[in-house]
This record gives sequence, structure tokens and C-alpha cells, in this order.
Amino acid sequence: MALIVQKFGGTSVGSVERIKAVAEKVKGFRAKGHDIVVVVSAMSGETNRLIGLAEEIQSRPVASEYDTLVSTGEQVTIALLSMALQELECPAQSFTGWQLGMHTDRSHAKARITKIDEMPIRGALEQGKVAVVAGFQGITDDNRISTLGRGGSDTTAVAIAAALDADECQIYTDVDGVYTTDPRVVESARRMESITFEEMLELASLGSKVLQIRSVEFAGKYKVPLRVLHSFQEGPGTLITVEDHKPMESPVISGIAFNRDEAKLTLLGVPDVPGVAASILAPIGDANIEVDMVVQNVGENNTTDFTFTVHKNDYERACELLEQVKNDLKAREMRGDKDICKVSVVGVGMRSHAGVASTMFKTLAAESINIQMISTSEIKISVVVEEKYLELAVRALHAAFDLAVE
Amino acid sequence: MALIVQKFGGTSVGSVERIKAVAEKVKGFRAKGHDIVVVVSAMSGETNRLIGLAEEIQSRPVASEYDTLVSTGEQVTIALLSMALQELECPAQSFTGWQLGMHTDRSHAKARITKIDEMPIRGALEQGKVAVVAGFQGITDDNRISTLGRGGSDTTAVAIAAALDADECQIYTDVDGVYTTDPRVVESARRMESITFEEMLELASLGSKVLQIRSVEFAGKYKVPLRVLHSFQEGPGTLITVEDHKPMESPVISGIAFNRDEAKLTLLGVPDVPGVAASILAPIGDANIEVDMVVQNVGENNTTDFTFTVHKNDYERACELLEQVKNDLKAREMRGDKDICKVSVVGVGMRSHAGVASTMFKTLAAESINIQMISTSEIKISVVVEEKYLELAVRALHAAFDLAVE
Repeated sequence: MALIVQKFGGTSVGSVERIKAVAEKVKGFRAKGHDIVVVVSAMSGETNRLIGLAEEIQSRPVASEYDTLVSTGEQVTIALLSMALQELECPAQSFTGWQLGMHTDRSHAKARITKIDEMPIRGALEQGKVAVVAGFQGITDDNRISTLGRGGSDTTAVAIAAALDADECQIYTDVDGVYTTDPRVVESARRMESITFEEMLELASLGSKVLQIRSVEFAGKYKVPLRVLHSFQEGPGTLITVEDHKPMESPVISGIAFNRDEAKLTLLGVPDVPGVAASILAPIGDANIEVDMVVQNVGENNTTDFTFTVHKNDYERACELLEQVKNDLKAREMRGDKDICKVSVVGVGMRSHAGVASTMFKTLAAESINIQMISTSEIKISVVVEEKYLELAVRALHAAFDLAVE
Repeated sequence: MALIVQKFGGTSVGSVERIKAVAEKVKGFRAKGHDIVVVVSAMSGETNRLIGLAEEIQSRPVASEYDTLVSTGEQVTIALLSMALQELECPAQSFTGWQLGMHTDRSHAKARITKIDEMPIRGALEQGKVAVVAGFQGITDDNRISTLGRGGSDTTAVAIAAALDADECQIYTDVDGVYTTDPRVVESARRMESITFEEMLELASLGSKVLQIRSVEFAGKYKVPLRVLHSFQEGPGTLITVEDHKPMESPVISGIAFNRDEAKLTLLGVPDVPGVAASILAPIGDANIEVDMVVQNVGENNTTDFTFTVHKNDYERACELLEQVKNDLKAREMRGDKDICKVSVVGVGMRSHAGVASTMFKTLAAESINIQMISTSEIKISVVVEEKYLELAVRALHAAFDLAVE
């Protein structure tokens, strides 16, 4: 008998029929003797409906009232799912954020969890009930309702699993697991049995469709075994866990991630003096533009070339800001390019395998794909190439690293 | 500077535009220097939408989860109204039932208030904020959400006014006050400046369209001055208060109430022995059928005739039950009649005016309306007459007691 936290997102509880289906599923687990905590999101569409109402009143709604408003979405779901469970004669009790003691700081609409009371949920479990928990919401120390930001229900599930020392945290989604790459690009992409927290984080561009990155960080920090499963199909899904749990002969590379949403900006002939990188990136950061890759090349004549990528949506604004920086620093030239993409190979195995980078570069060269930028971490190598080569690059690398379905 | 509790129902906050209009109105009162607590209902239609969802899952939803579900309706309204007030630069803070400390018993879906914490609302008022309170909801001693039953927002408003010793509790509605009778029946019906709590209770059939009877009882008990006003029209409305506040020459009769929804049942030739009334009404009460008027006439030969009225919806069932009672008691005959109506004259003035009854009976006789039943209380005389005479009777009495617009 295990303690399992299960999380069902908005699509999984998007109608009364689906809520009933989730109840059947939960009851099945309960019947096996497990203690179950179910975390749910608002019914799909509901959060957007509520935000729409708020925005008719205020273009930037007061954050504490915004949280009071949108948190009703999850409250509706917990009540309905508890009813559905009890209709199946499975005892259940709903918990809002304040009822379960999900304490957060006062950063409304993006609150951080500070403490979770164990007792309310443990009390329900001891009475043989399924605890049905509203995701995404908490309570501040001044008794106001807070929310963890959109998609925060994953984080709620992981945090509760950590607080209760659960055996597994299961995230039910509309995919049946994490794949070696996007199956829409590579038909032979393979569902992974397991993956490490670090790999999952580095595979963000694949994983973000599946899991909130913040919840993966949280799960890694507290070593909560996390499993991604399909809401309405049977199957083992993908287990996200610590490295130890992986088989000895785990492949060198776990997956191929990619991102079409980035644009590249370069400042050529920048004076090569201390602090120049900060001078370039400070105005970008001040404008709340997120920078992804940053590469500084060695240049000539005491100058250097500086390149970074931003989201395509921020490209025009970043160009304006960089033009100003160019003048301030007396750099030679600014160049920008939106027709790029980023392709990454990810795997904890590469720590002990020197050849990954050379295999990657050779594979791309064999397809005559020119590499514009390279950036590496311990378990990831990312390259920027021309956007039109994205599918070709991903397919070639997927084959080269032998990731396909056996 | 006064402390005023204002309550706006579902129609008054039925759209974003109306919520904005309410905010303007509240801001206007605040600008006069008053401390304001606003109690609101769910946006019209929302509660029914939520109940619909529940009933798709359970024909009789679990009461505690039902309360968790439907209480979200008011929570949405308080958040939106607080935003609308702050958009007008009027400081405001929303309060759910649990946030303000509206403690109730555990009778979910029809909970009774046990205690109200003063401090949360007083704290907001001291900070110069308008307190925006979710009507209809509370919290039980085991930390579950409760609701006061439909229409309970009026009761919330009165209870808070009593707890805070407010100067006035204003109930905003879709009528501009309480009338001497229904203006759809008597064109010259007049809005009353003031009326006593007792009269308002006796005028239930008029008043129930305007105010929850339970809230009037509550206001009377705690002597909270209650005012009925139109949400979107200017005007003084009708003040419901203790008798002392009425002018010396208050009219003998305040208003004419009527009810078309009753049916009459009579048992003839019942043995006139102690306990017979209980024997007749017990099975009716056991079947959860409410009895309104009860009249027992003197009969002959140690028998009596026993008549009572029930709601027309309960008529068939009551007839079946009474047929059984007739056999058990060996009564002579059972008679029933659905084509009746009840007409009542109400007024605290009649306590000291003997002639009210005779004026009433003479007026009806002059119109050749036969009286089938008579029942009196200290401040009300009700008669049952044939249903087709309803309008005629009400108009004749309205004129006879000089209630028309001057």
C-alpha cells in the first residue's frame, strides 16, 4: 500500500463526463489499497473565462482580488470531483488551499509555497477518504487567497507529495509520456521509460508541453518520483527520477529538444574590456526580455563579438535596445536574425562520453547544415542553425544517437 | 458619518456593466464619509449554472461539497466588485465567509449563523476600505464551507449589520420599495415610507418578492433598521423599522396582501375530542406539507368541522392523506377546493382600532364576495374567498382603507 499523489489538468476535468471518468480512475487506484491525494486544475476554459471578466473591469487587475477570482475555478472542480467519487461510493473530501494549509508568500498571482500543513490531508486519509485538492492556490499570512501562477497545479501536486513523503507523484496529461523528441517531427520517436530530473529540465522545450518546469525543479530538490501518464489511456508513462534508478546501460543521449521561437542578435567589434557583457545585457534584462543562449567569441584588435538569443516576440524591441548599446559602446556593427532555431541533445550519459559533441557536429556536417552558435552544459549541447534545417537536423541526430523505437 | 451595510442581489451584479454601476454607487456613499460594507450575491444565473453541474453528477449532491461549489459564485462577485471599486480609486477588500469569520452550524445548504468575528471587517474599515462581503456563505467549526440557503445574502447583510451595530442595512432590489399592495393588481398602490418589522412579516406574500422573510425576522430581533431600495433608481425606498419610528397618525392598515397559491381541505363531522386536531395534521406534517391557515368550527352532535389550507402543489397528496385520516377518525366527509385565494389586511394600527374587521367584512359583502374562512392575528385579518374574486376584493379593500396614492 502506497501513498500516491495524482494530478489531473484542465483538459482531463474539462467536462462533467471527464470528471466522472477521473473519479472511476481514482476509485480504481483506491481499490488497490493505495492512499490517494488528487490535485486538480480548473475545468478547461474556466480560468480564461474568469480572467476575461477581470479584464473587462481592470486592464491590470488588483493581484489579490485576481487570485480570489481565479481560484474559484479549482474550487468548482474539487467539489464536483468529490461528488463524483462519493456517487461511486468512494469516500472523498475536498480541500481548497486555505483548508489544507497551503501557505505561501504574498506574491499574488505568482506566489511561492512557504509551508504545507500535513494534518488536514493526513486526517482525511486516515478516515479512508480520497483527499481532493485544489491546485494552483494557497493562503498568505494575512489570510488572503494566493495563486502560484498558471500551470501551478503541477507544483501543488509535487509540493504535497514532498510534504507527505508520497511514494509517487503522478501527473496525468494528454500525452502518454516524455519522448526522445517530438513525434510530429520524427515518426520513430520513442517514449522513454525513465529520465532524470536534470534531463527533464534540459529537455524543457519538449517537456514544457508536458510538465511545468518549476514542478520538475521542485520534484528534483525533494526527490519526489514523478511520473507522466496519459489521462485516459492505460500505460506506464515516463518516470522522472534520480539517476540511480536508471538501468546501467542507459543510452548516452536521452532525447533531442528543439525550439523555433528564438531569434539571434550579435554585436560585432565590441571593446574587449571587463564588464562589457553586463553593459550589453543590462538594458535587455531591464526591459524584462529573457535571454536564452549567450556566446562571446574571441575577436581581433582588442575587440570581441557578442551573440545572444531572445524569444522571437521580443526581437524588435531587443534590436532597438541593442542599437542604443552599440552607439554607447562604440561597437562596430549590430546584426540580427529571426530565421534560426535551436537544436539540443540531452543526456546524463554524456558526462562520461567524450564523443557526443563530435558525433553531433559530424552528423550536422554530413547534412551540410552550418552551425551558427554552440553552447554546452554538463548534460546538454545546443546549436543554433538556420530555421529551415530544423526537421532535417532533428531527424539526423535522432538516428545518429540511435534513439528510435527498437 | 454612519456605518451602512448595503446588499446587492444577483440581478444588480448580473454583468460586468452592472458591477461597475454598483461600484459607482458605493463610491458615491463612501464619498459622503460613510463606512460601507457591501454584501453581494452571485451574478444572476451563476448559481443555477453551478447547481446544474452538480446535478449532472449527483441527483442529491453531497451537501458539504454542494456548498463548496455554489459558494464560488459569490466569491467571483466580491473579487470583481473589489476590482471595480479600486479601478475608481476607492480602496476595497473582498471577504469570503471564512475570511470574515462568518461562523455557522454544520447544517450544510441551510446553515444558521452562530457567530460573526467583528475584527476582519472592522480592520478593513479602519484602513478606509470598503469591505466587500460574499453573501450566503459561512464556515463551520470543522473548517468546511457552508451556505445559508438560497436568498441567504439578505440574511448575511442583516447579520453583519447587527454584529457591527450598523446605522442602517440597505437591501437593493429591482423594486423601489414595499407597496400597499401589488401595483399590478391595484394601479393606485402606494410605496410606503416606512413599515414595521411585524407588518413586513405579515405582508410576506407581498414582501417575499422583495426580501427574504428570514432576514426580516433577524432584523427585527436585533432591531437593525432595514431599507428596501431600487438598485438603479434614486429614491428613499421603504424603511422597515420598529413601531416607534412611525408617525403618530400612522394609518390603521398598512397594506393588502394576497396569495393565489393555496388550496383548502375540510373534514366534516369529526368527533369533537381532545387531540383530534393533532391526529388530522400529524400525517400532513410528516409528509413535509406546510399548513397555512387552520380553522376549527363548532359543529353539532359532539362533532366539529376542521379546515386548513396548503400550497396548491401539495393539494393532491394532502387529499390522499386526509382520506385515510377520515377513515381512521370515522369523520363524515372530506371536501377540498383549489379555486380559492387568501386576502389579508395588515397593520399595527388595528391593535387599537376595533372596526377593522367589520370594515373588511362589510366591504367584501358590498361586492357580494362570500367569505369561506376567517383567520386573525394581532395585526392581520385573512379571509379565504373564491379565487375569481381576488382582484375585486383587493381593489375594494385598498379603497376602503384609503391606501391609494394621495
